[in-house]
Amino acid sequence: MYSVPKATLGRLPLYAQYLRDLPEDGGDTISATRIARGLLLGEVQVRKDLALISGRGKPKVGYERAKLMQDIERHLGSEDLTNAVLVGAGKLGRALLDYDVFEEFGIRILAGFDCNEAEFKIGKNKSVLPIKDMERYCIENNVKIGIITVGQGSAQEVCDKLVTCGIKAIWNFAPCALTVPENVILKQENLALSLAHLNSQIKNKK
Amino acid sequence: MYSVPKATLGRLPLYAQYLRDLPEDGGDTISATRIARGLLLGEVQVRKDLALISGRGKPKVGYERAKLMQDIERHLGSEDLTNAVLVGAGKLGRALLDYDVFEEFGIRILAGFDCNEAEFKIGKNKSVLPIKDMERYCIENNVKIGIITVGQGSAQEVCDKLVTCGIKAIWNFAPCALTVPENVILKQENLALSLAHLNSQIKNKK
Repeated sequence: MYSVPKATLGRLPLYAQYLRDLPEDGGDTISATRIARGLLLGEVQVRKDLALISGRGKPKVGYERAKLMQDIERHLGSEDLTNAVLVGAGKLGRALLDYDVFEEFGIRILAGFDCNEAEFKIGKNKSVLPIKDMERYCIENNVKIGIITVGQGSAQEVCDKLVTCGIKAIWNFAPCALTVPENVILKQENLALSLAHLNSQIKNKK
Repeated sequence: MYSVPKATLGRLPLYAQYLRDLPEDGGDTISATRIARGLLLGEVQVRKDLALISGRGKPKVGYERAKLMQDIERHLGSEDLTNAVLVGAGKLGRALLDYDVFEEFGIRILAGFDCNEAEFKIGKNKSVLPIKDMERYCIENNVKIGIITVGQGSAQEVCDKLVTCGIKAIWNFAPCALTVPENVILKQENLALSLAHLNSQIKNKK
């Protein structure tokens, strides 16, 4: 699958929702123009997005609704969710574990892990398991993504452990730089830094 | 205050921590070289960062520790915290309300607001208040930043309300585009989209 720009990816859930909400008897085809009007988006943008994921529509007809929906779902990965685990069941970790929007974007967080030995549940159906069981769990469940929500002090250790578990990408919320092997993708998320940046923009505007 | 790059801003807490952890009797001055070694950072980078926030050090002596610490704190804003409020006390909202790292970066989330009428407490000392009291609260407490953690359906309404409350910047976690007046800064945070992007990088790597 070729790379789809992040901005397009971000609009796919909007398109999916629009298509799902159309009346059943609304016809088998839909034009980019109609989608653009329905979502208050620019027509050029919608045409570009849909061309990227589903090719060009038929002139004067548009897209077959069912096929377009399939193509969107395929790109969002909802037919084939990528499995993730999360390490560190503090407040942020628990909030992310229970954040069900991720599945709409193609990723399922299967479980959390913590050094706490006892297993416990979060929300409806997410377990937090002892970290000693993580390697077996990741291999058995084909886990590709590891999310780190532990403190700064143990983040690198957790990261190394996730690499041992065979994961392909790390999403790090601990406010520190991590080292990963070349074949592992690392994404650093620093919420406090984002907020500090917003704050410095306010101060510079004065 | 001139603009400090986000990357530099991100290292300031490291420098602050390093300076705080130095022994009391370790002398009144400190060189950029020593800080770089202590933190395993590049010397050029450390020199640049410190020059941006505290001017050049004295040749062969370095920086006065006390003044350097002051300059770092001033830039992090910890002498003068910017006040923020958060709207939407769901799981993500509560996690952010209780995330104390923000204060190290110069922002204090004073309280949360929710349409729930009753006041309740989160963690040690954060209140969640009824949204009808938000305008008065924001004016009385000189609130500059509004954080939106409500669902997509009510995000624009909450955003408009925050603008009425006189805030200068919005940090939006709801997965939808918002419209703000020109004098208000808007930062969109889409965690699901970040994760989806990481996922597409894995898929493209195959």
